[in-house]
Amino acid sequence: MTFLAACRREPVKRTPVWFMRQAGRALPEYRALRGDGSILEAIASPELAAELTMQPVRRYGVDAAILFSDIVVPLAAVGVEIELEPGRGPVLADPFRCEADLDRLRPIEPEEDLATMLETIRILTGELEVPLIGFAGAPFTLASYLVEGGPSRTFGRTHALMHAEPKLWDELVSRLAELCLTSLRAQVEAGAAAIQLFDSWAGALSRREYRRFVQPASRRILEGLSDLGVPRIHFGVGTGELLDLMAEAGADVVGVDWRVSLFDAAARTGGSVALQGNLDPAICLAPVEVVAEAAREVLADASGLPGHVFNLGHGVLPETDPGVLEAVVELVHEESAR
Amino acid sequence: MTFLAACRREPVKRTPVWFMRQAGRALPEYRALRGDGSILEAIASPELAAELTMQPVRRYGVDAAILFSDIVVPLAAVGVEIELEPGRGPVLADPFRCEADLDRLRPIEPEEDLATMLETIRILTGELEVPLIGFAGAPFTLASYLVEGGPSRTFGRTHALMHAEPKLWDELVSRLAELCLTSLRAQVEAGAAAIQLFDSWAGALSRREYRRFVQPASRRILEGLSDLGVPRIHFGVGTGELLDLMAEAGADVVGVDWRVSLFDAAARTGGSVALQGNLDPAICLAPVEVVAEAAREVLADASGLPGHVFNLGHGVLPETDPGVLEAVVELVHEESAR
Repeated sequence: MTFLAACRREPVKRTPVWFMRQAGRALPEYRALRGDGSILEAIASPELAAELTMQPVRRYGVDAAILFSDIVVPLAAVGVEIELEPGRGPVLADPFRCEADLDRLRPIEPEEDLATMLETIRILTGELEVPLIGFAGAPFTLASYLVEGGPSRTFGRTHALMHAEPKLWDELVSRLAELCLTSLRAQVEAGAAAIQLFDSWAGALSRREYRRFVQPASRRILEGLSDLGVPRIHFGVGTGELLDLMAEAGADVVGVDWRVSLFDAAARTGGSVALQGNLDPAICLAPVEVVAEAAREVLADASGLPGHVFNLGHGVLPETDPGVLEAVVELVHEESAR
Repeated sequence: MTFLAACRREPVKRTPVWFMRQAGRALPEYRALRGDGSILEAIASPELAAELTMQPVRRYGVDAAILFSDIVVPLAAVGVEIELEPGRGPVLADPFRCEADLDRLRPIEPEEDLATMLETIRILTGELEVPLIGFAGAPFTLASYLVEGGPSRTFGRTHALMHAEPKLWDELVSRLAELCLTSLRAQVEAGAAAIQLFDSWAGALSRREYRRFVQPASRRILEGLSDLGVPRIHFGVGTGELLDLMAEAGADVVGVDWRVSLFDAAARTGGSVALQGNLDPAICLAPVEVVAEAAREVLADASGLPGHVFNLGHGVLPETDPGVLEAVVELVHEESAR
């Protein structure tokens, strides 16, 4: 299992690869199977979600599968009314505003509330030949959706809440941390061999804010998983300034986007963690020779680092030609094996 | 003129301040004057645009004015059909796709095509007691709107074009550089005392891409202004990894967002330029004590640096309380004078 070994910074015969959002609209077989239904509907069917999880493993030959699910699933599971608008993302008609809203986040009972997700994992455990990655959204990123009511560029309301009502903020992220931790523990117990904590939008924060308002809650999750012995990956886009703090929160692997070379990322994290990344997903829209050259640069930047999991710097773009990603997997496998 | 002196890294009696997007919806007097008309309509009236430029100078007591205009004005002036959709940004019904589209970018004749903008500057030169900053969008940022057809998160088409058709890309940014340079020279000749080149979205690029596909065109603009002797500010959001390259392109001042402290930014730019920034605009939605504390941290990070222009790390958010920004100006003036 090169993926798990690389996460643990053990020697591997070749660099493992997977792609964030590898189960997605870039694949014709995904589009055919998903049709017009909503993501939450697809997730609600364990057979369908398992098949969507396996499609990219077959097509691309990647070294890990990631559960087909969404970071808002645990929120929806405890009754938060949240929709996934196609092309936009998670949207709440009734955003979080005050202390009373905390009551909307009751504790989660995984075997009841996450029954479908856990059933999907159990199906996959019997089918997959590669490790399955479970995941959750980190408290800051989830809180930003709850507070903004949807995706945001500036996170104005989220900032206003953390700075104006720090106690309420702390209670909010603490409840979200509990939710994430319970969900991730249940995923691992059901068969996930690694987990990724997505703090997708943490890169919008300054270091001071991250340290004060975000890191403690994320640490609670990552440290709360340490007894399970599975690799913990911690990722957010545009987090070049936060890589050391994200490692320090209790990660075994830190995901890096394309803005920082893996060589620099290793220096910033002091070699204490494995690194995952970091081919620019937008470059994957270029001709295959250009993509190959960029993938080689990623391998060169990572050469000599113990523990590299090849990935994109963010999710696969829907317009990507799957043939290009197949070629990337082949190239990474071949050239890293030399 | 503390603003110009700080830009030139000369000693100042107190740190100068201005705010990106200081002329905007945060001001009730702005909302009253703008009404429901479009931005391009407001820009088309020199008296109105001059008044909108002066409002924040009166209200906030800032040390510089920035021309009320938009980065798409030179594009519209040469006949590119581009709209500014409220809440969204620049949108083209017919995006750039191929070589034939280059013909849509004819050379600009400033006295004819930019007559209104230059008239606005001439009015302001007679009215303002503080320096006026002219500005333009940098070639990459303008090209991204032309190629994507509107704002983008991932810049997929832009990346595809630069990598798949590098010659066409080079010709596109070269024409845009010419357009920007001509516009900026005309603005300075009409009375602008400094200019800012906004490469708002350059932070989406890797260093390799910036160096190969963006820096040469931006350098052409900045170096093409050097004989005029006005300070040249170069800014993009999320450009922490590119600060040295943006300085190297020919800037006197590099704008920094809130993700990188000014102390670190000075190290990254090797002390070769003045720095502008970097209070988080989202923090300005917090209670005034929190904002004051954050502003003090910016001053502390910048203490000892020759050449600091206080600003936000990006534009003023429309929800900002103008009283908070007034307090920031006062605080920066008082505390930096000690």
